Amino acid sequence: MQLRIPGPTPCPPQALEAMGWQMMNHRGKEFGEILKSITERLKRVFQTSGDVLVLTASGTGGMEAAIVNTLSPGDKVLSISNGFFGERFGEIARSYGAEVTSLASEWGHPVDVDALDRALKADRDIKAVLVVHNETSTGMTNRLKEISTVTRNYDKLLLVDAISSLGCINLPTDDWNCDVVVTGSQKGWMVPPGLAMVGVSERAWQAHAHAKMPRYYWDLGKARSMLEKWQTPWTPAVSVFYALDVTLDMMLSEGLDNIFARHARVAEMARERVKSLGLSLYVGEEYASDTVTAVSASDRIDVPRLVRVLRDEHDVVISGGQGKISGQIFRIGHLGMVCEDDIQVVLEALSKALPQAQKG
Amino acid sequence: MQLRIPGPTPCPPQALEAMGWQMMNHRGKEFGEILKSITERLKRVFQTSGDVLVLTASGTGGMEAAIVNTLSPGDKVLSISNGFFGERFGEIARSYGAEVTSLASEWGHPVDVDALDRALKADRDIKAVLVVHNETSTGMTNRLKEISTVTRNYDKLLLVDAISSLGCINLPTDDWNCDVVVTGSQKGWMVPPGLAMVGVSERAWQAHAHAKMPRYYWDLGKARSMLEKWQTPWTPAVSVFYALDVTLDMMLSEGLDNIFARHARVAEMARERVKSLGLSLYVGEEYASDTVTAVSASDRIDVPRLVRVLRDEHDVVISGGQGKISGQIFRIGHLGMVCEDDIQVVLEALSKALPQAQKG
Repeated sequence: MQLRIPGPTPCPPQALEAMGWQMMNHRGKEFGEILKSITERLKRVFQTSGDVLVLTASGTGGMEAAIVNTLSPGDKVLSISNGFFGERFGEIARSYGAEVTSLASEWGHPVDVDALDRALKADRDIKAVLVVHNETSTGMTNRLKEISTVTRNYDKLLLVDAISSLGCINLPTDDWNCDVVVTGSQKGWMVPPGLAMVGVSERAWQAHAHAKMPRYYWDLGKARSMLEKWQTPWTPAVSVFYALDVTLDMMLSEGLDNIFARHARVAEMARERVKSLGLSLYVGEEYASDTVTAVSASDRIDVPRLVRVLRDEHDVVISGGQGKISGQIFRIGHLGMVCEDDIQVVLEALSKALPQAQKG
Repeated sequence: MQLRIPGPTPCPPQALEAMGWQMMNHRGKEFGEILKSITERLKRVFQTSGDVLVLTASGTGGMEAAIVNTLSPGDKVLSISNGFFGERFGEIARSYGAEVTSLASEWGHPVDVDALDRALKADRDIKAVLVVHNETSTGMTNRLKEISTVTRNYDKLLLVDAISSLGCINLPTDDWNCDVVVTGSQKGWMVPPGLAMVGVSERAWQAHAHAKMPRYYWDLGKARSMLEKWQTPWTPAVSVFYALDVTLDMMLSEGLDNIFARHARVAEMARERVKSLGLSLYVGEEYASDTVTAVSASDRIDVPRLVRVLRDEHDVVISGGQGKISGQIFRIGHLGMVCEDDIQVVLEALSKALPQAQKG
């Protein structure tokens, strides 16, 4: 089967083998060594000298941790929003009593960096900016480097949802002054879901010291303090750590630059093949994501039927659209364990399935 | 290796095999069928006609979900506390602004049910009672049935940490009027950590409708609404679901009564063997847990050394004490996949290791 949704991604056999290893004492020496080694290697992929903490949760849990560990109820937050997950990030902050202003573009349209500058200039009380690096819902990569230059100029906290970018698309956490960076195990890391990894800068720790949003499970301070003993505060998803221990080796052997280049090549190929079928990309190519390609369904394509035909007749699993663009696009995930041959298979299947998925 | 800590517990080979299965679309039909089937069987083990929701988190996340879905900041809560996890439950509620009163006994000593009655009579504003069914930290089972009779008389919400009891020790959720019941996958369920399962009564849903504590990831309302489509709101720990799908069949084949009887037999054997080595149990036998046996270390036993000798020389992994009784007790877990032979092995190893762990 070709599982080409934007996560969970297929796992390599070595990772699946590790998933099947027997349990061990999560407070024992052996697990401590795994946790230490994973943490050190995660920092290399995050490109940070700050902390990286691993939570047992999905990526959304990591987003919540980013919010509640740095902010207090009533804090002003600017939420950059041009997709489903951008909206989610703002919603989480609102749930905890932040005063959230959206800097919204149409879904799939780029953030106006000048508008960000003006918004931060106009309201000096804004404490943090929320941004999704790679919008899984629209297949668009936001220009995080430019955004981070602006947020740094105004000395704002920058909280980044990098769930479907980190480990696939370059994100130098420290160089780009990102304060909290969140990712999830089932994306570029090539392991099953169950872990959220959260990078935390020194500035974020300073904010943490004064942040009053309630937290317990998500308390990164507890996680940092337990990490001194190479333990987690709560029982961790041991098996996913086993697998991550294996895939981090694979990732660092390949090398970050090679991984980024492979994702770029595969994405470029996906876009070219999609266009050669007479289909349109949902977002402009200069913003198109290297981990997920969103295709406009036009009026002629019945997306649920297309997804079903691909799955039932071609053993290829892709995603439809999310939220308000459900039915208007379909999405091909190409992150983690993916190469050109996979895209070849998916696009061939797509070319065969399209005629069966016409409306009317 | 004999992994005999009170969780993670050893997993049967069939569960480990399932852990190694390849990923699938967590929003697809096939995963929906697994989720549906797991949910229906969980309800049988919870002995409830209410809802059971599965969260990707450790048990502590489930405890937090119990609190934030039923309470508002300022609500009065009575927290029954006679161990490490009883204290944790109260702390979580306090973190979210509840006004928590502790009804505390010495660790390892029973809750005074009459005192509970008096406390609830004295303050009619108390909204919820928190209790740990089985205190993993002391090896003591609280008398939940008696406690629940009192809380029902006063019409209070009863929130139960059943993390290390459910599926091992009888807990008829509906018959005992438990409103939220929390357990964790790495305990009696014989699968790796990563999932918290949460039973929710109709009364708890009524409380949910008015509960104002902030929540997003833990929102059980979102989980219930997504379950109508047989999905989870956030990406679930797919592999642990695969494994739970397998072990629930094993559990229901064995039968709940047989599982409870096996745990009781194994625990009784553990206690008898411990006493026959001249050691004392940490809690009175009438309260002793069927899932974990805590042994008083007396002044003569060096607990860290005992744990180390057992692990390094006998391939048996047990736990020391937690929190303020660290060093004073050691604990043998016997839950999930456990039988008399396992206890035989552990106790033989213990008899050999004890002389090597005397304080000098």
